[in-house]
Amino acid sequence: MKIKSFHPPQRVLMGPGPSDVSPRVLAAMARPTIGHLDPKFVELMDEMKSLLKYAFQTQNELTMPVSAPGSAGMETCFVNLVEPGDKVVVCQNGVFGGRMQENVERCGGIAVMVQDDWGRAVDPQKLEDALKANPDAKVVAFVHAETSTGALSDAQALVEVAHRHGCLTIVDAITSLGGSPVMVDAWDIDAIYSGTQKCLSCTPGLSPVSFSPRAQEKIRNRKSKVQSWFMDLNLVMGYWGGATKRAYHHTAPINALYGLHEALVMLQEEELENAWARHQRNHLALRAGLEAMGLDFVVPENERLPQLNAISVPQGVDEAAVRALLLSDYQLEIGAGLGAMAGKVWRIGLMGHASNPRNVRLCLGALDDVLGRMQAPITRGVAVDAANLHLAA
Amino acid sequence: MKIKSFHPPQRVLMGPGPSDVSPRVLAAMARPTIGHLDPKFVELMDEMKSLLKYAFQTQNELTMPVSAPGSAGMETCFVNLVEPGDKVVVCQNGVFGGRMQENVERCGGIAVMVQDDWGRAVDPQKLEDALKANPDAKVVAFVHAETSTGALSDAQALVEVAHRHGCLTIVDAITSLGGSPVMVDAWDIDAIYSGTQKCLSCTPGLSPVSFSPRAQEKIRNRKSKVQSWFMDLNLVMGYWGGATKRAYHHTAPINALYGLHEALVMLQEEELENAWARHQRNHLALRAGLEAMGLDFVVPENERLPQLNAISVPQGVDEAAVRALLLSDYQLEIGAGLGAMAGKVWRIGLMGHASNPRNVRLCLGALDDVLGRMQAPITRGVAVDAANLHLAA
Repeated sequence: MKIKSFHPPQRVLMGPGPSDVSPRVLAAMARPTIGHLDPKFVELMDEMKSLLKYAFQTQNELTMPVSAPGSAGMETCFVNLVEPGDKVVVCQNGVFGGRMQENVERCGGIAVMVQDDWGRAVDPQKLEDALKANPDAKVVAFVHAETSTGALSDAQALVEVAHRHGCLTIVDAITSLGGSPVMVDAWDIDAIYSGTQKCLSCTPGLSPVSFSPRAQEKIRNRKSKVQSWFMDLNLVMGYWGGATKRAYHHTAPINALYGLHEALVMLQEEELENAWARHQRNHLALRAGLEAMGLDFVVPENERLPQLNAISVPQGVDEAAVRALLLSDYQLEIGAGLGAMAGKVWRIGLMGHASNPRNVRLCLGALDDVLGRMQAPITRGVAVDAANLHLAA
Repeated sequence: MKIKSFHPPQRVLMGPGPSDVSPRVLAAMARPTIGHLDPKFVELMDEMKSLLKYAFQTQNELTMPVSAPGSAGMETCFVNLVEPGDKVVVCQNGVFGGRMQENVERCGGIAVMVQDDWGRAVDPQKLEDALKANPDAKVVAFVHAETSTGALSDAQALVEVAHRHGCLTIVDAITSLGGSPVMVDAWDIDAIYSGTQKCLSCTPGLSPVSFSPRAQEKIRNRKSKVQSWFMDLNLVMGYWGGATKRAYHHTAPINALYGLHEALVMLQEEELENAWARHQRNHLALRAGLEAMGLDFVVPENERLPQLNAISVPQGVDEAAVRALLLSDYQLEIGAGLGAMAGKVWRIGLMGHASNPRNVRLCLGALDDVLGRMQAPITRGVAVDAANLHLAA
């Protein structure tokens, strides 16, 4: 055998996540491990809650990171809020709405699917119609920022419709948090989950979540136990809750939490509004370059996520070969299509630490080179110029 | 607000875990993040599987780390192997057998509890009697190394009894893996889970698991879907499995996996047998010192885990005050009692990187000082001498 230490290459991560991680976050993760009940670690936990409340723009006491990746954050929301027999309206406009359906059904709930085209925002009118047809629905779930297509939905409008029909709301903010406005209290969201490896510039492995007092009440008054011991918020809160004495639930991933803490300190230093503006600015520059080349976006302009740019693969181009060349010749990772969009699109991320002018230029220049080598039908030599006009403004 | 970067103190971790993490592991975690589908990361995954097979002493193809702490590894075993209505015999001799019961019941299974005294090994005869009384039982679950008491059970004997009665076996090896022999194939274990933060010298947050072909067959032939999407091995295996093309399931915790890879490389360098011998040697030295002071072990000598030493708190001593002084004056963490043993015992870990002669001497000297200050009824000034005799041998 004799396997050696692993030394990863230095990539530029412009896919759908993980995105580039700040060196400050990596350095934080390498600090000495302390115990999960150490008084100094309890201080970190309190700060973490404050920092996450700021990121989510909420006063929810039940705001914390789940000790596992975003998929587990999603499942934490569903297993706690959905009881067997509960009807849940799920708005689907991409891959992750389908995963929500899986979650509902595995909790013994009944999923009522509302379908929108992939690459479009969720239509509030369709949700309204579905809720009129299903007056016994208890929960509405939708994806704020569809990572599979780059579509941004109007979370505030969707939550308003759900509440008018007496439903709680579960919102997927994996790709939006830190990159686009996410206003948990102002939009009155009941349960929300995110990931650390997108616009928070952190490594993957944790899932920030937040629950409104209304959601907490539902959890407290459940008729059945939460089916997952690991994700049961009644238990998790004994450790993360505001109590003076913290009860052991599971062993927290200490060093991963150091990293998230540092990422959130950086977000606080930059300030949310500035982070959102930065994501928008770099998106516009990238867009200008892509459009100058003649590449088309999948999502209509007013429904686009600035941090995730899905573009159509030009006719006759081997999309996997392009990604392989970008990786080998530029150490640059962009994403492939997912689900129904596999083979048809690329997903270019400008998330968190990776959303910067250097990456915009690098990506455009690299695409120009590689697509040119593959004789793709694009306009060459104009992409970076077009981006520069935006970056200079 | 203005929360600053977090700089943890440099502790010596001699509790029940997390234990001291090797600087090599911390350095690995700070290496640049790459994508979870990057060809270089796929190489790391293949190496990880080989390294875990070595650690578990198994040829099981379904051997990998769950992307969450040990509690999620436990739940992964139960949600995949227990279907609603299945009867599961759970042997309990401490806190973690109780958690197994919770898991069985939340899967819709029927838990038949076999109780042994806390601080003692599980009695194979009691298991035999329970299986005779419950011929319809399908699974037997027990804890190999009870982290709450420091008792080591005879896993091979228990598995043999279970198989004789046609049951699959789920084994908790959180605290044993890397510190005491764990022979998955030789002992014919069907499902096993561990943690990274004990004898593997890694940070907490991942849970290595392994499943025998027999367990895999049961999972493939389930009548119902696994209730957890995140932990469904049918899905997880699309990513971790041996297939040439890896399907996205969830985003793996890249940097945490760098750390585990490095920890397992170190275990391979030291070799398992040497790691087991080191844990035993340091345990004997610590034991000599503790006994010379007059402190008593909770577990009888032939049932003791070398890596977790539970000792009774002397009469009249404020156990929490002792731990607080060890932390403030020596930066030394030892563990409190858990569950029924809270307030009555200390748990002194000598796990992984933390199992070394310096730590043995440090802990004994510190206890001698702090217990002396509290006028505990111990023999002073003899502990380190007694340990030295063992360490010099």
